[in-house]
Amino acid sequence: MSRSTAGPEIERLIQLLARLPGLGPRSARRAALALVKKKDQLLVPLAGAMTVAAERILTCSTCGNIDTSDPCTICSDPARDTKTIVVVEDVSDLWALERAGAIKARYHVLGGTLSPLDGVGPEDLNIESLVSRCSTGEVAEVILAVNATVDGQTTAHVITDRLTGTPVRVSRLAHGVPVGGELDYLDEGTLAAAIRARTPF
Amino acid sequence: MSRSTAGPEIERLIQLLARLPGLGPRSARRAALALVKKKDQLLVPLAGAMTVAAERILTCSTCGNIDTSDPCTICSDPARDTKTIVVVEDVSDLWALERAGAIKARYHVLGGTLSPLDGVGPEDLNIESLVSRCSTGEVAEVILAVNATVDGQTTAHVITDRLTGTPVRVSRLAHGVPVGGELDYLDEGTLAAAIRARTPF
Ligand SMILES: [Zn+2]
Ligand SMILES: [Zn+2]
Repeated sequence: MSRSTAGPEIERLIQLLARLPGLGPRSARRAALALVKKKDQLLVPLAGAMTVAAERILTCSTCGNIDTSDPCTICSDPARDTKTIVVVEDVSDLWALERAGAIKARYHVLGGTLSPLDGVGPEDLNIESLVSRCSTGEVAEVILAVNATVDGQTTAHVITDRLTGTPVRVSRLAHGVPVGGELDYLDEGTLAAAIRARTPF
Repeated sequence: MSRSTAGPEIERLIQLLARLPGLGPRSARRAALALVKKKDQLLVPLAGAMTVAAERILTCSTCGNIDTSDPCTICSDPARDTKTIVVVEDVSDLWALERAGAIKARYHVLGGTLSPLDGVGPEDLNIESLVSRCSTGEVAEVILAVNATVDGQTTAHVITDRLTGTPVRVSRLAHGVPVGGELDYLDEGTLAAAIRARTPF
């Protein structure tokens, strides 16, 4: 891409915006221009919100969720079922399940799926920390809310193997999640139904 | 949209990101999550770039371009043809012409098009400042590089009327077949214009 002629400050803004998912070089330019035009209404507040987020956002050392406290709001919520852990690949999946109001339990964020082709092994995911959460006797059920992809299902099998011998019951989301589909793109009704109809794994 | 459960800081980030062109609520959530995950590589630099932009970006009081100096880099470039002003609707059009390397002249950013239906009249655009730039005797030609839309062409006519009596020559962009364009996909008006404006081969 050639320069915008608007100086290095805008060039840098465009380049960084283009690294956001969903924005290519052209839409990054449009976004930068919208920001600069709406300086007081959009650019200044967004710069502030990002600075606050950068200063305050933490990863929960219990479940891997993203929040401003550690343990996170969900882990420290006394109204939630502490006997059930919903295992998700990514924080976006946790958000999707919470938006669906599918279940009021705890979560465990794996941070990805096993992917031998990409060199992602069990040690790269938060699996051991899940096993130790399941070893205290407090947890009765682990719901594997992983994507219905090959890597997701491989990950589900490996976790199930690792939890053999612990007292927890392992279940997975009901079919109803389209094969190959990603949780983040599903509607709330489908997610809620899949939680309700979960089956033993 | 329901909450992300990640706290008000992330909610605010998502809401502000969703106001960028090209990002809806879903992609704003993905962008926010990408930012938070890549805190040091993306969130902190972008927050910084936005803060710098907010502090330093100005609108050129001569031409309406966006830059960090006033007059802008283009208005103060001695290598540019000062006898020609290219009139554009928006800074994004100025950027597009500069990327194309189409002409090394000065610009004038109208800030929109006349749109009676949307209540945009001549007084809402930078037309009077164009007329005064054209009254000094330094400018020989005004090129109307406005969009080939009804509003764009109405705007072109109004500007042409306002410049009657000044010594400047008014021209507009040629209509024709886009470079690389296939005739089969062009509308009849474009094809007819391209035939009328045919050039010796
Ligand atoms: Zn947590
Ligand atoms: Zn200027």
